[in-house]
Amino acid sequence: MRALLFDVFGTCVDWRTSVRRELGARGLPEALADEWRALYQPQLETVRSGAREWVNLDVLHREALDRLLAGRGLTVADPDELTRAWHRLDPWPDTVPGLSALKRDFIIAPCSNGHIAQSVNLAKHAGLPWDAILGAEIAHAYKPHPDVYLRSAGALGLRPREVTMVAAHNGDLAAARSVGMATAFVPRPAEHGPGQTTDLEPEDDWDVVAGDFEELARRLGPRTRPASAPPRP
Amino acid sequence: MRALLFDVFGTCVDWRTSVRRELGARGLPEALADEWRALYQPQLETVRSGAREWVNLDVLHREALDRLLAGRGLTVADPDELTRAWHRLDPWPDTVPGLSALKRDFIIAPCSNGHIAQSVNLAKHAGLPWDAILGAEIAHAYKPHPDVYLRSAGALGLRPREVTMVAAHNGDLAAARSVGMATAFVPRPAEHGPGQTTDLEPEDDWDVVAGDFEELARRLGPRTRPASAPPRP
Repeated sequence: MRALLFDVFGTCVDWRTSVRRELGARGLPEALADEWRALYQPQLETVRSGAREWVNLDVLHREALDRLLAGRGLTVADPDELTRAWHRLDPWPDTVPGLSALKRDFIIAPCSNGHIAQSVNLAKHAGLPWDAILGAEIAHAYKPHPDVYLRSAGALGLRPREVTMVAAHNGDLAAARSVGMATAFVPRPAEHGPGQTTDLEPEDDWDVVAGDFEELARRLGPRTRPASAPPRP
Repeated sequence: MRALLFDVFGTCVDWRTSVRRELGARGLPEALADEWRALYQPQLETVRSGAREWVNLDVLHREALDRLLAGRGLTVADPDELTRAWHRLDPWPDTVPGLSALKRDFIIAPCSNGHIAQSVNLAKHAGLPWDAILGAEIAHAYKPHPDVYLRSAGALGLRPREVTMVAAHNGDLAAARSVGMATAFVPRPAEHGPGQTTDLEPEDDWDVVAGDFEELARRLGPRTRPASAPPRP
């Protein structure tokens, strides 16, 4: 295993708390955060189905915002600036220390539906120490399309089995496993707020299940494993 | 100015010393390093001219190595492993401290003819703290083709004038300026060894000329500039 690829929204960053805060600061209802996110998968589906050419998340997020605001008869002074709230999401407390430890032993990169500019700005905001920015934009496709995983591994010159996909979402891991990647599940039970009912537990025999990124680093990192432990597979 | 893009071979890393060492360690003539590099521009030209589809530098470096070894009747046990010497080049002494300082204020990324895997491996080897990996592979073209510069800025969501190209080669800066980027010249007078005759001086009125990356950071970084200094252009 040479590299770890990470889902970002929900897995690395707490998009809900961050977007609610940005909405509230503009006098908009914080509940719009969940509605904004709920429009996301149907939007991606228009690209995945081929009904629409690949466009980046700024375009999709802006369209969804316009629709939500219009539906409530609301306006905002600078909708593009609010759309870039998705470039300013805070990490979970374990994200940066966990990634920093994993980076000592592995190549780490996002394999997100975010585009390169969004991923770079988010990494600068949240302190995510990526070695490269991979994912949807280099494939011009959206997860769970297999090309997103395959092109991300390919860009690193690696075969899928040399890569572990890390995500808080069972569906993402199922797609990564289907192209031959190893899988690590890190649940984020607060991603969707107090009433979350999905992705609370692993739904398959993922190769690793860890409570957070620091535990993931302890489980995977040879430098922190006891000398008597068996070699990594 | 939001981002700095960097040439890598020669500008960030001392390819010649590193490749000579790898050749010598295998009992091969160290002088092959210069011959290996000399084949590089003619190889790139076959792609730039359209005579050949885009292939990555591992392919080009391996072909050149085979040609050089055959020409001297030499062989090497693992030519692919020796080809990856170009993934293990040492930085100039000022490179990592300079990039680390610049990263605090700007997005920093390579805009190199190296591909993503080579650039990532090189960054891990040399400790180059890139925010993203841009350059030839995302454009499927080789510098000085304008697409390499334009697509690298575009991937960051930036206009060319929001980006400064940093290079030790006047030709690279001329190409970057032609698409509207700002330019910074950092000479590397030892890149080609003791007899270097090219790129010793700026050959145009580049926006910045700095002796090394630490001086570049002092010149560009608002956090280290005196309070009385004029605002950055």
